[in-house]
Amino acid sequence: MEVDFGKLDGLLPAVVQDDSTGEVLMLGFMNAEALRATLETGEVTFYSRSRRRLWRKGEQSGHVLRLRELRVDCDADAILARVEAVGPGVCHQGYRSCFFRRLERDGAATVVAERAFDPARVYGEAQKP
Amino acid sequence: MEVDFGKLDGLLPAVVQDDSTGEVLMLGFMNAEALRATLETGEVTFYSRSRRRLWRKGEQSGHVLRLRELRVDCDADAILARVEAVGPGVCHQGYRSCFFRRLERDGAATVVAERAFDPARVYGEAQKP
Repeated sequence: MEVDFGKLDGLLPAVVQDDSTGEVLMLGFMNAEALRATLETGEVTFYSRSRRRLWRKGEQSGHVLRLRELRVDCDADAILARVEAVGPGVCHQGYRSCFFRRLERDGAATVVAERAFDPARVYGEAQKP
Repeated sequence: MEVDFGKLDGLLPAVVQDDSTGEVLMLGFMNAEALRATLETGEVTFYSRSRRRLWRKGEQSGHVLRLRELRVDCDADAILARVEAVGPGVCHQGYRSCFFRRLERDGAATVVAERAFDPARVYGEAQKP
């Protein structure tokens, strides 16, 4: 099938979900090369918009995402990667999921998860929140 | 907190997840107005890129998404809406989830879900896949 990379300048949003627990872990973007690398290597690879290069998740931290199943949506413009997440968490702030804050009606954000690891140890002081 | 709408021309990707089953149902985009409407009304509202207007999910089909919890990610540039999905499915092609196809390594797509309703009855013949 043809995946539609035309709507966001060559990028697709890619949702990452834990295959065993169902938890949504993060959202990244893939270009065609990242999607191909993900399918070929079995490790989820994104295109980093800030670094402007392919980014194999876990290349620095070791917290790789082993692909279990890749889904594509009805319009072929979004991806769902069901994965086994290696390590204690995917978030550079030390949480299992990047979606660790609840957004309240008044716009405030409340942390609703426990920290799973010390991000400074994994990513270095530069990434300390 | 400040949600970052600056990376995609005023839009954020918003993942919709069934709050009781954990199933990822769809991905849409929100602008600031859609996010505000979602929080204020308790029904998930997107910005439709094709129609260039706010789009309250279910406004035509009745298959609305009742907000249970809104999460924001570490970079404040992606949203996760945990919902109660009213009706048999969210997808205009008649499936419970828009992510009803598996993408194979060779690029082929395999339907891996059962159709939940007849889209022609809900959306009219124009939407028949």
